[in-house]
Amino acid sequence: MRILILGGDGYLGWATCMYFSRRGHEVHAMDNYLRRRAHAEAGTDSLTPILESLPARARVWREVTGLEIGVTEGDLNDWNMLERVFRDFQPEAIVHYGEMPSAPYSMIDREHAVFTQSNNVLGTLNVLYAMAEFTPEAHLVKLGTMGEYGTPNIDIEEGFITINHNGRSDTLPYPKMPGSFYHLTKAHDSHNIHFACRIWGLRSTDLNQGVVYGIETEETKLDPRLATRFDYDEVFGTALNRFCVEAVIGHPLTAYGKGGQTRGYLNILDTLRCVELSCLNPPELGEYRVFNQFTEQFSIIELARKVQEAGREVGIDVIWHHYDNPRVELEEHYYNAKHTKLLELGLQPHLLSETLIESMFAVIERYKDRVIEDRINPRTRWRAVRERAAT
Amino acid sequence: MRILILGGDGYLGWATCMYFSRRGHEVHAMDNYLRRRAHAEAGTDSLTPILESLPARARVWREVTGLEIGVTEGDLNDWNMLERVFRDFQPEAIVHYGEMPSAPYSMIDREHAVFTQSNNVLGTLNVLYAMAEFTPEAHLVKLGTMGEYGTPNIDIEEGFITINHNGRSDTLPYPKMPGSFYHLTKAHDSHNIHFACRIWGLRSTDLNQGVVYGIETEETKLDPRLATRFDYDEVFGTALNRFCVEAVIGHPLTAYGKGGQTRGYLNILDTLRCVELSCLNPPELGEYRVFNQFTEQFSIIELARKVQEAGREVGIDVIWHHYDNPRVELEEHYYNAKHTKLLELGLQPHLLSETLIESMFAVIERYKDRVIEDRINPRTRWRAVRERAAT
Repeated sequence: MRILILGGDGYLGWATCMYFSRRGHEVHAMDNYLRRRAHAEAGTDSLTPILESLPARARVWREVTGLEIGVTEGDLNDWNMLERVFRDFQPEAIVHYGEMPSAPYSMIDREHAVFTQSNNVLGTLNVLYAMAEFTPEAHLVKLGTMGEYGTPNIDIEEGFITINHNGRSDTLPYPKMPGSFYHLTKAHDSHNIHFACRIWGLRSTDLNQGVVYGIETEETKLDPRLATRFDYDEVFGTALNRFCVEAVIGHPLTAYGKGGQTRGYLNILDTLRCVELSCLNPPELGEYRVFNQFTEQFSIIELARKVQEAGREVGIDVIWHHYDNPRVELEEHYYNAKHTKLLELGLQPHLLSETLIESMFAVIERYKDRVIEDRINPRTRWRAVRERAAT
Repeated sequence: MRILILGGDGYLGWATCMYFSRRGHEVHAMDNYLRRRAHAEAGTDSLTPILESLPARARVWREVTGLEIGVTEGDLNDWNMLERVFRDFQPEAIVHYGEMPSAPYSMIDREHAVFTQSNNVLGTLNVLYAMAEFTPEAHLVKLGTMGEYGTPNIDIEEGFITINHNGRSDTLPYPKMPGSFYHLTKAHDSHNIHFACRIWGLRSTDLNQGVVYGIETEETKLDPRLATRFDYDEVFGTALNRFCVEAVIGHPLTAYGKGGQTRGYLNILDTLRCVELSCLNPPELGEYRVFNQFTEQFSIIELARKVQEAGREVGIDVIWHHYDNPRVELEEHYYNAKHTKLLELGLQPHLLSETLIESMFAVIERYKDRVIEDRINPRTRWRAVRERAAT
């Protein structure tokens, strides 16, 4: 299958490029290095050393495996470039990770909020037009987030919910209550994509993904130069990955607020398999479907305890301070999100085990001298603009 | 009350400026003349002759009434200008019409879709930041659209719906199924505004407005130079207003498809009163509320028949052709939208009567030599990008 991977230089994007390439697909990666630039500006970096560019990564991939990954260094908001990629490559599937992925980044200030919404929503709108014009039968596999739903007091369904109301019934998009200007972009994308499927007969799978953890895949292990990026800083690092780095370097776990915040989580290996299952089982033309892509739910406290226990096994004393929550979110809430559709397609989850955490510790240990410790504690506050105004 | 009116040069915006000014409020109007430019590019124009700029309109207003309307000619996406307006004027209410308002415009092609989403969503995001920073207690009265809901097969509630699901219950944002890239911007705005109210404690009334008709208000009648704009072309003209112009000039009514499309409608006089009622009865800080702002539902066929009947009364032979529907929408569907909240605040609707249509005919008659007839028939097709690709 010809698979175009947007955001192919990222944590999941690069891992996905290698995964599909190794399984015999023709892969083309596109990226504008947005994340690398954001790190450079903030003085942060990936824990794992990664090669300097996508072409360099593709060269090493060819050297190690003999396989080709095509590369375009460019922006989804550069229409001429996007048009050329669609015309030339004629993708059958588009795996779309190509967005600014950080909630804290989007909440830094007005400029970052506007940039995030502009970059993500308009970039995806361009992708929809490129599909409609050049590859109307291709399948858009779009990475969304479980964060689109927020934390409603009823069960979270997969994208749609049947509502019985005043004696009538309809199945409608599940209501959205995203928790940051970043998460909002994913809800906006979902609405735009759903519309494009309705009016143009495009097809799309919207993967409402949970929080991903893990540092290695089968392909990254082939050669240290094939490592995918791994972020642990307050802006790009997500809960479990960040906790593991903190444990190894002896930094208190940065668990925010009361720690009752519950979310869906999954192993990076399951992300790869979920995206593969989506590509191999496309929806009908005109269909917009949503899969909730995670394997288990944990609260922040549960995650922190697991990291402590894994630490105990290997002789690491994991400490844990109280951090004021920089976000605005419920810290104790109901959470029960459905996630059966990918299981029905054949997903066999890698559940979170102490062994997995211990193996993450071991990899992090190798790179711990690279950790920039003063970029771990939370600094980006959701109420910043109000707090500044009040002083 | 100090009221900032964004989009103060538009059909409703200018009428609202005069309405509030005359009722003793301190009014400041801001507009970037987006609509005037779009008309100039398309070779279309307002039926009513309007003065060349907001300052000119404000001068005549002062001459006629002795009242001041402040003016800023500028763009919501120009942060420096927006910041200055908020700092200097310190609005207590912000009435926000300042968006690209046309569904067909947003569907012309990729550039127009991207522009519409960029202009509307990012402009409103800037407004939210300006409020958070400079006027956190001000009240945002935001013009949305009934088109955010689409045509679900259950009753449409006002912004939120209580869902009973698997033995639990929650009141959540009503699911959105907008029908154009323009309508989608209003749904995106709603999600962004709701979030800003939750995290920053802002307050907002989101007016999901139906289709507005009417050509005169008490204030426009004070002097012909105070006319508000009136659009009838295929891009900016809406159903009833366009039909009235067509009737007067002997053009077939442009009713699309089967004509069963049912929507909410209201008189421009009721728009003014609804916005006033919203301003005079603000929500609590932190509250985001939604009012469905229309007074009656009609199908396209019902509207066309009303225009025909009014024509018969005054000796106009109204003809009516079948036009292929350029949009993608259901042409026969359930539609029952609630609209009680503004009535509870005291709205006394001006319902649609033959007399009203006849009075519109009379005003249109005065200006009928200005009609550009070849810009009335539908040319903007929702599937254009697919149709072009197929040829």
